[in-house]
Amino acid sequence: MLDYRKIHDSLIPDAEEKERLATIVSKIIREVDAEIKSRKLDASAELVGSLSKGTNLKNGDIDVFIVFPRTLSREEIVKHGLSIGHKVLPKALERYAEHPYVYGFLDDTKVDIVPCFRMKPNEKIKSAVDRSPLHTKWVRENTDDKLRFEIILLKGFMKGIGVYGSEVAKGGFSGYVCEILVIKLRTFLKVLELFASSEKRLSFDDSIENGKDDSLVLSDPVDPGRNAAAAVSRHNLAKMRILSREYLHESSEEYFHGLPRREPSHFDRGTVFRIISIDRPDMIDDIIFPQIAKFRKIIIQECEEGGFNPIDSEVLASDKIHLLIELERAIRPTFRVHEGPPGDSGETLKFLDKWSSDNTIRGPYMRGERPAVEIPQEPEFDKFILPALLQKDIGATLNTLKGSIRVGGINNSRAHKEIMRKYLSRNLTD
Amino acid sequence: MLDYRKIHDSLIPDAEEKERLATIVSKIIREVDAEIKSRKLDASAELVGSLSKGTNLKNGDIDVFIVFPRTLSREEIVKHGLSIGHKVLPKALERYAEHPYVYGFLDDTKVDIVPCFRMKPNEKIKSAVDRSPLHTKWVRENTDDKLRFEIILLKGFMKGIGVYGSEVAKGGFSGYVCEILVIKLRTFLKVLELFASSEKRLSFDDSIENGKDDSLVLSDPVDPGRNAAAAVSRHNLAKMRILSREYLHESSEEYFHGLPRREPSHFDRGTVFRIISIDRPDMIDDIIFPQIAKFRKIIIQECEEGGFNPIDSEVLASDKIHLLIELERAIRPTFRVHEGPPGDSGETLKFLDKWSSDNTIRGPYMRGERPAVEIPQEPEFDKFILPALLQKDIGATLNTLKGSIRVGGINNSRAHKEIMRKYLSRNLTD
Repeated sequence: MLDYRKIHDSLIPDAEEKERLATIVSKIIREVDAEIKSRKLDASAELVGSLSKGTNLKNGDIDVFIVFPRTLSREEIVKHGLSIGHKVLPKALERYAEHPYVYGFLDDTKVDIVPCFRMKPNEKIKSAVDRSPLHTKWVRENTDDKLRFEIILLKGFMKGIGVYGSEVAKGGFSGYVCEILVIKLRTFLKVLELFASSEKRLSFDDSIENGKDDSLVLSDPVDPGRNAAAAVSRHNLAKMRILSREYLHESSEEYFHGLPRREPSHFDRGTVFRIISIDRPDMIDDIIFPQIAKFRKIIIQECEEGGFNPIDSEVLASDKIHLLIELERAIRPTFRVHEGPPGDSGETLKFLDKWSSDNTIRGPYMRGERPAVEIPQEPEFDKFILPALLQKDIGATLNTLKGSIRVGGINNSRAHKEIMRKYLSRNLTD
Repeated sequence: MLDYRKIHDSLIPDAEEKERLATIVSKIIREVDAEIKSRKLDASAELVGSLSKGTNLKNGDIDVFIVFPRTLSREEIVKHGLSIGHKVLPKALERYAEHPYVYGFLDDTKVDIVPCFRMKPNEKIKSAVDRSPLHTKWVRENTDDKLRFEIILLKGFMKGIGVYGSEVAKGGFSGYVCEILVIKLRTFLKVLELFASSEKRLSFDDSIENGKDDSLVLSDPVDPGRNAAAAVSRHNLAKMRILSREYLHESSEEYFHGLPRREPSHFDRGTVFRIISIDRPDMIDDIIFPQIAKFRKIIIQECEEGGFNPIDSEVLASDKIHLLIELERAIRPTFRVHEGPPGDSGETLKFLDKWSSDNTIRGPYMRGERPAVEIPQEPEFDKFILPALLQKDIGATLNTLKGSIRVGGINNSRAHKEIMRKYLSRNLTD
């Protein structure tokens, strides 16, 4: 039997961190309130997020919302919110996700200052972040020490196996989803049992219509028509199911701190690695990562259709965006087989009018019930993939950077070493 | 407009051949009848086949049937039939298709002597060949000079494009099918028009139940429940459709004498050719060819499943059976990706119990919604294919010759040169 108290304590901030967080929070709230007063605004600073709920893991962020009345316009609250944020957070940066906000670092802790509209339960939201204060309130009202203990374990487990985090790039479980799950099922282990035993779509509420295509459906208690778990990808749901099953079969503290990772072996794989890189645009991950995912998907598809037999791929966004792809080979035949219409179609006339032994490598000949010809193609992967990618739509931002696309082998650079290590040591938590 | 009279005359035996055939036929019939008399049998010699119908192409065979009463047993007619055959044909050989018979050569012309039972129309057959005399009779009663002229053109066209011949290995159109088609549609061109314009299954009689899976259904006039065209393969039906269309679009004498064949080019295909050979058993083609076809199918399937990306293949049955296969490569990765059950299945426990980083090259890792591992495999084609084939059922006869299977590259032998030429110069008539 594991010592869950010990595990819990290893997951939350220690005394020193707690004190530091408390100091920063009271300073921020005080200064934001002072700014509100001096601007004569009808607004208030509120600590939201897991810290305010007592369900925060160590090394977390601080989220402070400035709640404005609904009578103001979106432009006004953004203007005031950003300006107050910059005043309070020296050297702060702005981010434009679905909603603009300011973030910066105080004493090595990341602080977000986010303007939002005041909202009551079931009221129509004006901005995606407006629900956060309501979420905070609901969780606080429905948890006690026991449940917070279980929430910490669940968050720690999910973080350890790599399914925690609701950022677009991650497609994981948000802290709020962990909280709802524990409040509903009462313990960390009961939540794992549910994932371990469930099949197909995992739905807590079949009445949510817009959740039909989501793999996990969990009604948001403060807005029951909304699927709070919509961001969870099928990949992460599968990971959670598989590793819940493994954990219940044989539990271990390792799950909370990252499963051991094998050393990349120097086994000769008999394959070819190529790296395709493109400049990294100066934008936030939530905007870039979906485009990187699209870029990756297009590359894999081109490799498959081109007959280069891709095995697997890896992405690394560092100075540039690097896409590693492992191919069964980087040279394909100098021709491809092009099949015509079936024998019972009158269209064979057109096909055979177009193709004759004058413009083919071999054929026309019969391939089963169809005429077929062999026509030349570029055999080298590097020469094939670049023009193919230039013709594709790889997302609004990446499209403007197509000129920076490079294709080549693995070199000794830090980025290439890192992406190879990531690829070769991949485990179930990736 | 083509000179069909000239084409017709080029397809049939010339005066010298006609005279030779007449001499051989009368000699055989006379000698068989003498043997029947001396053995006091109630039997008669009958010339059957296209020669007796006046629809024979040049360089054809002579088919003489010895028709026995139905009161005899199968063993008796075979015994008498073979013994008479050997008496009449010096150096004759026996063949055991569905029915045993004797064949030999007289004056460079092949002669078959086949015992059969006397049969009336619609009577139940005792042996597959019993229908032949009835077919001969029906065609003679339903043709005149004009129709025989058209039949010769159709047979010549089908022979020229490689779809003529009802042997099992060929899967083509028999002479009898050509005759029925012309008798039904009256001209060679009308038959081509039907094939050129028809779609899907080509049926003249939907009442034939056992013809449901055949691609072409043509009721046998002397046994209406039988599909006379059952032997026609989908491949040959497609060929006939495509080339009928081409011919009607732009006719040419070439179709009757074999379409021109390109010279095999020395273009670098960027592929690998392998030849798999096995001893040729001393049996007739009708028995061996289905097994060769099976052998070929198994090899292609193994190449596909093994990831060697087969492009196409060719068979040559000379001193040995040679199977040529063109692969995109003869070396594959040193490992294969083995996917486990999906995340929502409890079976992932068993999979992850079996596979760990101790016995895999990479993984277990997540591949979409499934755990996956990479496990070693033999990378070389030659070392992979031989043991794989030894485990397969390749037909009763070839199974006994598995020890003779060899795998290798192309050498300078006559057989290898011939199979390569056959492969590289393949056209629509193959």
